[in-house]
Amino acid sequence: MNKDRPKTSQPTDPLATPKATIGRLSLYLRHLENLFQAGQETISSNKLGEALDISDAQVRKDLGYFGPMGHPGVGYRIAQLREKLRSVLGTNRDWNVALIGMGNLGRALFGYGGFHRRGFIISALFDQDPQVVGSVHGNLTVHHISELSVLTRELGLQLAILAVPTPAANDVATRVQAAGIVGVLNFAPTRLTVPKDLSIVSVDLGSELERLAFDVNRRLIPSDDDTQAPPLE
Amino acid sequence: MNKDRPKTSQPTDPLATPKATIGRLSLYLRHLENLFQAGQETISSNKLGEALDISDAQVRKDLGYFGPMGHPGVGYRIAQLREKLRSVLGTNRDWNVALIGMGNLGRALFGYGGFHRRGFIISALFDQDPQVVGSVHGNLTVHHISELSVLTRELGLQLAILAVPTPAANDVATRVQAAGIVGVLNFAPTRLTVPKDLSIVSVDLGSELERLAFDVNRRLIPSDDDTQAPPLE
Repeated sequence: MNKDRPKTSQPTDPLATPKATIGRLSLYLRHLENLFQAGQETISSNKLGEALDISDAQVRKDLGYFGPMGHPGVGYRIAQLREKLRSVLGTNRDWNVALIGMGNLGRALFGYGGFHRRGFIISALFDQDPQVVGSVHGNLTVHHISELSVLTRELGLQLAILAVPTPAANDVATRVQAAGIVGVLNFAPTRLTVPKDLSIVSVDLGSELERLAFDVNRRLIPSDDDTQAPPLE
Repeated sequence: MNKDRPKTSQPTDPLATPKATIGRLSLYLRHLENLFQAGQETISSNKLGEALDISDAQVRKDLGYFGPMGHPGVGYRIAQLREKLRSVLGTNRDWNVALIGMGNLGRALFGYGGFHRRGFIISALFDQDPQVVGSVHGNLTVHHISELSVLTRELGLQLAILAVPTPAANDVATRVQAAGIVGVLNFAPTRLTVPKDLSIVSVDLGSELERLAFDVNRRLIPSDDDTQAPPLE
């Protein structure tokens, strides 16, 4: 590709990035982080797609949203693309996160190792149960949910993880938005009535089990060299 | 499209379905379930794609893996496509699931409402801590992990949810496979050394927060009608 010729994939307004792309950006970034750690310097869209079962055309389209990133005859420079994706995905900075709901799930998420190292810092804990408020986890004390607004301002909380029972989820989402928090990671298996100015990502654990069942179904279609019977009826 | 002309998207061996398709099948199914509940009878690939931010060409390709499903001039028949996807994703039947690790996360998952109604039945609980073994949750008693093989045969356990600490994850995955369980949903934020005959789906909660941060980043690029300042520095 000649530098003077117009690129086939034009840089687009990041606001126009399709939602389906976002999930893939995370996949690209994780793979690039591994390659980066391993000292690899470049990768082609073909190889990147192959590793993730995504077509190379789709890879080029996805990464084209953020301007021309590929280099003719070289592919993507891993360090550069990694930096760009970290910036796009917001993991090149720290986020202050409120964890709301300190039942089993909340306590499990508080102990989860995968948030902090990507820059998501759980900075405040909330619950509405008087028996839970005041309890201490790590170096944090659980606050009553009524203190959410004050602490959001004081601590600069930006995101909230909702680990509350399903019937409470919508009420809490409304409080979260009123407090000025801009994004919610929702674990309640229910659809939140989305307030306008709140980003919501819902974790659907049931659909993860569906993915697993699909893979098992697919893998265990009997074939000639399949000697071990699986425990499926 | 004429009935006598060959279809452009040939039905393919389901074994050849790309991994990236699987995640989308779950999305299609969830949307179709909603439409089905609402009494809608048909939908075009265009409308289906629009609702999920997936191109209609991609929709037709994904659904084409399972044979010709679209009807010329009609689109997809929702009841028929829903049934097909439920069968492909394995949610038209029940699965017996072992839940391994009864710490905070395990207890949270045991109480999670999104598994049972999709046919994933938690049928046995395991831990290795003598203080946890023997405790009762719902109508189930926690067994020691050493009983996994016996109970897998006795109860016909097929899938396992791994809610164990990261350092234990690989050891438990090996035990799970030896017991004859064919699929694992892994919550430990680590890459399992995949034994050959085990399907593994890893839930990466950190990447869900990345998706959220991306959406917030994208939404909060200041625009003219943006009067309310978000609490981002």
